[in-house]
Amino acid sequence: MSLLKAAIIGGGHIADDNHIPALKKLADQVEIIAVCGRDLSKARALADKHAIEHAFDSTEALYGSCQPDIILNCTPNNLHYDYTMQALKNGCHVFCEKPPAMTAAEAREMADLAKEKGKILAYNFQRRQSSEYLLLKKCYEEGQLGEVYHIKANYLRRRGIPGWGNFTNKTIQGGGALIDLGVHILDLALGIMDYQAPDKIVANIHDFIGKTGGKGLKGSWDAAKFDVEDGCFAYLSFPGNKSISLSCSFALNQKEEEIINLEVFGSKAGAVLNPFSLHTEVAGELADIRFPFLDETDTQLKNTTAFIDAILGKESNISTAEQGAVLQEIIEKIYLSATL
Amino acid sequence: MSLLKAAIIGGGHIADDNHIPALKKLADQVEIIAVCGRDLSKARALADKHAIEHAFDSTEALYGSCQPDIILNCTPNNLHYDYTMQALKNGCHVFCEKPPAMTAAEAREMADLAKEKGKILAYNFQRRQSSEYLLLKKCYEEGQLGEVYHIKANYLRRRGIPGWGNFTNKTIQGGGALIDLGVHILDLALGIMDYQAPDKIVANIHDFIGKTGGKGLKGSWDAAKFDVEDGCFAYLSFPGNKSISLSCSFALNQKEEEIINLEVFGSKAGAVLNPFSLHTEVAGELADIRFPFLDETDTQLKNTTAFIDAILGKESNISTAEQGAVLQEIIEKIYLSATL
Amino acid sequence: MSLLKAAIIGGGHIADDNHIPALKKLADQVEIIAVCGRDLSKARALADKHAIEHAFDSTEALYGSCQPDIILNCTPNNLHYDYTMQALKNGCHVFCEKPPAMTAAEAREMADLAKEKGKILAYNFQRRQSSEYLLLKKCYEEGQLGEVYHIKANYLRRRGIPGWGNFTNKTIQGGGALIDLGVHILDLALGIMDYQAPDKIVANIHDFIGKTGGKGLKGSWDAAKFDVEDGCFAYLSFPGNKSISLSCSFALNQKEEEIINLEVFGSKAGAVLNPFSLHTEVAGELADIRFPFLDETDTQLKNTTAFIDAILGKESNISTAEQGAVLQEIIEKIYLSATL
Amino acid sequence: MSLLKAAIIGGGHIADDNHIPALKKLADQVEIIAVCGRDLSKARALADKHAIEHAFDSTEALYGSCQPDIILNCTPNNLHYDYTMQALKNGCHVFCEKPPAMTAAEAREMADLAKEKGKILAYNFQRRQSSEYLLLKKCYEEGQLGEVYHIKANYLRRRGIPGWGNFTNKTIQGGGALIDLGVHILDLALGIMDYQAPDKIVANIHDFIGKTGGKGLKGSWDAAKFDVEDGCFAYLSFPGNKSISLSCSFALNQKEEEIINLEVFGSKAGAVLNPFSLHTEVAGELADIRFPFLDETDTQLKNTTAFIDAILGKESNISTAEQGAVLQEIIEKIYLSATL
Amino acid sequence: MSLLKAAIIGGGHIADDNHIPALKKLADQVEIIAVCGRDLSKARALADKHAIEHAFDSTEALYGSCQPDIILNCTPNNLHYDYTMQALKNGCHVFCEKPPAMTAAEAREMADLAKEKGKILAYNFQRRQSSEYLLLKKCYEEGQLGEVYHIKANYLRRRGIPGWGNFTNKTIQGGGALIDLGVHILDLALGIMDYQAPDKIVANIHDFIGKTGGKGLKGSWDAAKFDVEDGCFAYLSFPGNKSISLSCSFALNQKEEEIINLEVFGSKAGAVLNPFSLHTEVAGELADIRFPFLDETDTQLKNTTAFIDAILGKESNISTAEQGAVLQEIIEKIYLSATL
Amino acid sequence: MSLLKAAIIGGGHIADDNHIPALKKLADQVEIIAVCGRDLSKARALADKHAIEHAFDSTEALYGSCQPDIILNCTPNNLHYDYTMQALKNGCHVFCEKPPAMTAAEAREMADLAKEKGKILAYNFQRRQSSEYLLLKKCYEEGQLGEVYHIKANYLRRRGIPGWGNFTNKTIQGGGALIDLGVHILDLALGIMDYQAPDKIVANIHDFIGKTGGKGLKGSWDAAKFDVEDGCFAYLSFPGNKSISLSCSFALNQKEEEIINLEVFGSKAGAVLNPFSLHTEVAGELADIRFPFLDETDTQLKNTTAFIDAILGKESNISTAEQGAVLQEIIEKIYLSATL
Repeated sequence: MSLLKAAIIGGGHIADDNHIPALKKLADQVEIIAVCGRDLSKARALADKHAIEHAFDSTEALYGSCQPDIILNCTPNNLHYDYTMQALKNGCHVFCEKPPAMTAAEAREMADLAKEKGKILAYNFQRRQSSEYLLLKKCYEEGQLGEVYHIKANYLRRRGIPGWGNFTNKTIQGGGALIDLGVHILDLALGIMDYQAPDKIVANIHDFIGKTGGKGLKGSWDAAKFDVEDGCFAYLSFPGNKSISLSCSFALNQKEEEIINLEVFGSKAGAVLNPFSLHTEVAGELADIRFPFLDETDTQLKNTTAFIDAILGKESNISTAEQGAVLQEIIEKIYLSATL
Repeated sequence: MSLLKAAIIGGGHIADDNHIPALKKLADQVEIIAVCGRDLSKARALADKHAIEHAFDSTEALYGSCQPDIILNCTPNNLHYDYTMQALKNGCHVFCEKPPAMTAAEAREMADLAKEKGKILAYNFQRRQSSEYLLLKKCYEEGQLGEVYHIKANYLRRRGIPGWGNFTNKTIQGGGALIDLGVHILDLALGIMDYQAPDKIVANIHDFIGKTGGKGLKGSWDAAKFDVEDGCFAYLSFPGNKSISLSCSFALNQKEEEIINLEVFGSKAGAVLNPFSLHTEVAGELADIRFPFLDETDTQLKNTTAFIDAILGKESNISTAEQGAVLQEIIEKIYLSATL
Repeated sequence: MSLLKAAIIGGGHIADDNHIPALKKLADQVEIIAVCGRDLSKARALADKHAIEHAFDSTEALYGSCQPDIILNCTPNNLHYDYTMQALKNGCHVFCEKPPAMTAAEAREMADLAKEKGKILAYNFQRRQSSEYLLLKKCYEEGQLGEVYHIKANYLRRRGIPGWGNFTNKTIQGGGALIDLGVHILDLALGIMDYQAPDKIVANIHDFIGKTGGKGLKGSWDAAKFDVEDGCFAYLSFPGNKSISLSCSFALNQKEEEIINLEVFGSKAGAVLNPFSLHTEVAGELADIRFPFLDETDTQLKNTTAFIDAILGKESNISTAEQGAVLQEIIEKIYLSATL
Repeated sequence: MSLLKAAIIGGGHIADDNHIPALKKLADQVEIIAVCGRDLSKARALADKHAIEHAFDSTEALYGSCQPDIILNCTPNNLHYDYTMQALKNGCHVFCEKPPAMTAAEAREMADLAKEKGKILAYNFQRRQSSEYLLLKKCYEEGQLGEVYHIKANYLRRRGIPGWGNFTNKTIQGGGALIDLGVHILDLALGIMDYQAPDKIVANIHDFIGKTGGKGLKGSWDAAKFDVEDGCFAYLSFPGNKSISLSCSFALNQKEEEIINLEVFGSKAGAVLNPFSLHTEVAGELADIRFPFLDETDTQLKNTTAFIDAILGKESNISTAEQGAVLQEIIEKIYLSATL
Repeated sequence: MSLLKAAIIGGGHIADDNHIPALKKLADQVEIIAVCGRDLSKARALADKHAIEHAFDSTEALYGSCQPDIILNCTPNNLHYDYTMQALKNGCHVFCEKPPAMTAAEAREMADLAKEKGKILAYNFQRRQSSEYLLLKKCYEEGQLGEVYHIKANYLRRRGIPGWGNFTNKTIQGGGALIDLGVHILDLALGIMDYQAPDKIVANIHDFIGKTGGKGLKGSWDAAKFDVEDGCFAYLSFPGNKSISLSCSFALNQKEEEIINLEVFGSKAGAVLNPFSLHTEVAGELADIRFPFLDETDTQLKNTTAFIDAILGKESNISTAEQGAVLQEIIEKIYLSATL
Repeated sequence: MSLLKAAIIGGGHIADDNHIPALKKLADQVEIIAVCGRDLSKARALADKHAIEHAFDSTEALYGSCQPDIILNCTPNNLHYDYTMQALKNGCHVFCEKPPAMTAAEAREMADLAKEKGKILAYNFQRRQSSEYLLLKKCYEEGQLGEVYHIKANYLRRRGIPGWGNFTNKTIQGGGALIDLGVHILDLALGIMDYQAPDKIVANIHDFIGKTGGKGLKGSWDAAKFDVEDGCFAYLSFPGNKSISLSCSFALNQKEEEIINLEVFGSKAGAVLNPFSLHTEVAGELADIRFPFLDETDTQLKNTTAFIDAILGKESNISTAEQGAVLQEIIEKIYLSATL
């Protein structure tokens, strides 16, 4: 089989640190043929660093000279829509960074076009690939949890407003803690809810700490320019009497430096994601099950592989375009509820 | 000053174990003059046990022969309204067990009548009197927490469906985990929200485990007769961009045998109720404050004292009739949301 | 149904503290009619204490005036055989203290006579009735452990030579740590080996510490009169390639004050008795299962009940006469190997 | 003094990682002159890597061109005998990897020839050189333990079947867990028993988990080709009423990932190897002694040094040819007992 | 032998709770014949409670009607001198509560008179009798510590100002934390210094917290009447280049609720009193020795026994009149240094 | 602004590892122009390593060819005085290693000359710059501790006699544990005492372990040449009723490998340095405050910066010449007291 040709759009850290290294480990299936960035010299430097042939400073140039099979959309959030739509129109499969887009309508349009074009559009929710989550998913699918009816999904930092990047810039990011952190844990929770859409959402967002400033544990941020939420609390109620309680924050006056967890409550068993445990009955007695030997995994490599598998028609647990559209709509509704 | 005369209506355990012992410790202020119960011999026996003069088997008989200043309404939930209204009409102050009533309309009517009659109607939410909660309240009121914008309120048992009493009987109790457990922790949370009414509520209730049966840690229950919720999850959004996330259960597949806690998030500090701690900044650094020497307190004695103080016009942190009406309305809305 | 009539032979602590209280809790099934002891006044005092009608100072007198259905043989080890044989001959069911007898031949003869007479002869190995062991047994019988091929059985004390009773007197007890402690843990281990007889036994016994003396944690003992083993190590190999490694001691230079445990190794799972845990695979991953809510149980009451159940033809997990004979033969072989 | 000339036979990892680095640190006493392996190019590469002059692909070539004083026998187990005998016949001292040989007769023959030739034959049981074991040995030899009468020797892995090398191949290795792991801990135990031969041995071996397969913690193994024991339990009784209880496994359903330990019980004190502690009496009271500052040591360097010391006639705690013969006979008897 | 006749002077709690119960356990050696207190009815009541024949309200009456062999001086500190001197003059042995007196001169005079009269005068420093201290003393005397050259002696409470008794009244007590707490730990430290007198003392005392008031963990105290030290820090240098660092407090801003400890530094080993441990070398390695099975002891019974033993001429570790004089002089010098 | 020119005197490890790297990080303010050492080739090598232009083997040569603004005096203790005086006379600011000098008179003279010359003389007590100490200082200066009246200052090692350098040589070092370790912790304690001079000092020094030898945890030392103190205990009483209890050791029979700590007791709060905590009252309750997120800091860089800041007239917490004189006088008095 001939190699899939991949081109990178957006030559920042996420491409350099995550996507390119993962693709290079899959060199028997994929060849990276080009890097495209706003600044040609930086794109060229990145290409050279990874022994990639072409570098471009416009997607027009890219599509003009190459015919990639795959586009890795590593651009800022506010450009996800444009470059993904363009790539699909150029007949490419697209592996897009999260969140899917800036609006639910965009994400829906992206999913529709992918479907129409018969191409794979997938999002890089790589936390799906941790050993803990895969085990949770397996237990859920084997029915060990019974009916899952409530999930607490938390991604909470005490003082973790990033002191670098665009994380506190609403125009570029589209939001704060929900967009950067909450979206990950929400994706995981939805995976245990069959990724259906909620019928009721209530939410609140806050920016007390972000706007006040103070000591940071992930660098210092500029309180004066902080215009996103530092925390978000939301409750999602689903058909079938299920619900998710979502909490995420860049900054919150809690004890722990960082909490990333799911607590899943089912009719037969409950599960906690980190460290993974089951709480159930065994031989008629209440029992707690721990798994002390779970492997650490290269979640990016696994997720990139899942994307390639999807292209090749193999079974894959990649985040699909359809899931991305569901997720983006939930995010939009959370902000709507919160700003009303 | 002459002693206040108190009469007990409802001669069950709550009267015998909690209210009468507390009142007897306040013998310099209150005299218990009568016990009234459905079964005269049992009422008489309880009266004898505590050296109380009168015993009756109807409130008509009670009010016919005595003129109590205070009624302690220790009847089942579905009788709170009737006996409280009657007592107020008879010119008595009333100390009523929780929850206030079966409906929001009842609780509102009770509050209105108390106001009209100029009498104290109070509810026995005695968990308000723990050292931890009083300290939390003090920190809140002194402004150490800043703006409080989110509270997680949990009262969760793994397998704590009571194997005695009427706790699983909806007709008598009016509900399950929310009515018996959730109402306590909700009262505490509302106290840190100035007891205002929420403007949005979404909730879900469940009965998977209660209806399935299995091992119990508070005796065995009859799954066939179980007709209340074993768990309830709710989100309350308040004017001013505040919110409470409420979780309560008789039975849930979690690790812990029982969790009773508030996590309070404010702009200046966060607080955890049990064990009490503050999470804030001191001298410009992130700091955790612990209080290793809090006293254990007799919460019932403190709460009964608070009720008497209210009658005497002293400062008091007793649960007022007005607060009871707010609380009952929230409960009703939670069930409404959950059953829709 | 008329009550079973029980008589106690041997009026010491074991009768007073364990057997009589247990029987009294079963008063709807059993009536204690007599106590028989060497010293009539002591027997009478014990009978009075427990409101038992008759007291005797010889079994001849007992059988001359009463017709008990059940004999509880609470005599010292060296009298187990005589009084059990006599009781069976008098047509009684017998509940005999452990160990069964002083020799394998005696225990075999006792089992044969019980069979011939059609009476229940059972031994009081009450540790079988702990929640932990019953759960272990259940897991074993449900096949959760797979093939069990090795058990480490330990009953080890650091300095637990009893400073009272006859525990260090070989003539009366028949042995030391093996007879008093090892026999219990061995009974438990054999229960997970289908109580078959081993085909190979190697063992060693020691008395270094017992004969030297020193600080005791269960009173002081007389090193000069110490004539039993203070420790015993044995290995039992069974048909079917199974084995038990047995270690028991009154006194051993170990860290722990006391270890009482089984470690059971099976093809599908391993189990540890105290605290009970399973070590196995769940959902394809290595898993440890803990049971944090096991009940504490009244093991003597459960064991006495099991004895009565056996008499009544109900299912029972009591130690049978046949098991007693197997066990006694193993004990004899351990001592034989050790003294060779 | 002129340097001792050493030649390596068997150019695998054990030579490359352990023996050659150790010898190079002793460059003031030893010079490595040659490497001999089946594949000349590999031998040459190894020699080059370590700046060793000669490389050969047959021992005939080796002895034909060089006159080594020392042979390091780093060949697979089934070749230990041949190359050691040949080396002794060529007048060399031999440092042979463990286990000594495939049969007791071979090990005996090797010891006899070494004696006859007046050469040092030693085995590389480098675990003897840990600080913990040296301290145990010192305490034993100073009499602090008194009479040592029982040792529990455990080398137990939960799922530690090696996924590489020949460890599951009986023809090459001669056995499984006993040969690879048990032999080490047995060597340590025998050192505290004056390395005498036991007079009674009972043992069992198993292969349930090895033949079933599943998750491995040291790589994946091929269950279909697994033909060695995954576990071995044995009891060794020695003259003088002493005993060793040996347990070793590649795979066992236990909690711990790996247990490597000795528990030594003496008349005056007991000792645990890892972490090293003594359990005894001090000033008339039961006392536990811990040693929190033991050094980590380069056990291979210490063991190689001990071998050189033995050649030079200095005091040495190296495993002697005689000890190797005793050990190999025990191994043979364990397998004999287990397969009967 | 006829019984020793004992009379109690001072009928407060210390007599009722400590001395009389201890003496009654020694009824084969001592008979309590009288109680003498300021208030006759209270003295009579205490005598009746303990079945003591006589009660008096003056020592004149006591000595007028009885001839006690032993006086137990249980009066307040400021009366120790008078009643002890009187008792000695009346030919009695005296067991006096601590501290010995109000001044060094008094304590010296008391010791001189006891010597002159040939009577035992002893002080009730019962902490000498704890298992931990007796073991420390034994290790010291056996030479296991080598030369002891420094001791840190701490008796420190965070907020332990007693809310009862005379503990904060300088006129009656003579001082605060040093007199009530420090004196105990100093007595223990001096016992490991051969009770010699120091040649240099520097000290400071404080009353910040005592005079400020606040939360108390041993009841509430009256800050306005507080006229003793709440804390004392002192350094005592002894001939032979030894030293004690003494710290004691009723109230100090430390973490621990209470610290009562000695840290003893010797040339061969160091020791910590609570929990008792040795820090030394064993077999050439740094070692920590713990004693997990020390008995709890009835220190008052042991100390009263030691007093009786002294009277009977047996070996005794009671605090002697001479030691009391040394101790009182040190206390006086500490206050002198602190007030300069 | 032109760069400050710095020259290093003393080319050992402290220059190479600490001072030069710190200065190089401040290359925008300082230029290192020369290294001066006894051995020219070593000085040249060090200069080359750090790209420093000049190397000299005498200070005469240095001052002859260069005009440094700053001298870093990295010579042994017994040369601090000479080279510092010379540098000041040559018009340089001096950053001198600790301790200031060999005698109090020297340190005083150095301070006086610095003042006279108008130059900065500072000492390198870099432990002042840890986050913990800076936070302690801040809390003290903000008044959170109230009146500080006692400090326990400990720098204690179990077996930490350095096996390298001149640490055990009195002629070069001037002393042992006090000079090398105690001086640091004393500097920190004095900083919380406003660096005033004590009016009373008592002290003792010891050398039992140093002169005996044994196992070392910082290399092996030569007991025969050991001529300094291995431990020092001292008590310093200050005007205003304050005190410091100082304990330092190279070797002491304690449990911990190393203790470096201050315990500070104030009228409002107490503080512990490592890990930093406050013990005080919050909201009327006793409270413990922890700071789990303090940064690790490059204390040398911070201290060198503070020295430069002092030269530039900025606010600085550097150890001043005056403080050095106070400190040296205390050290002298401690030794005086100890040797009397």
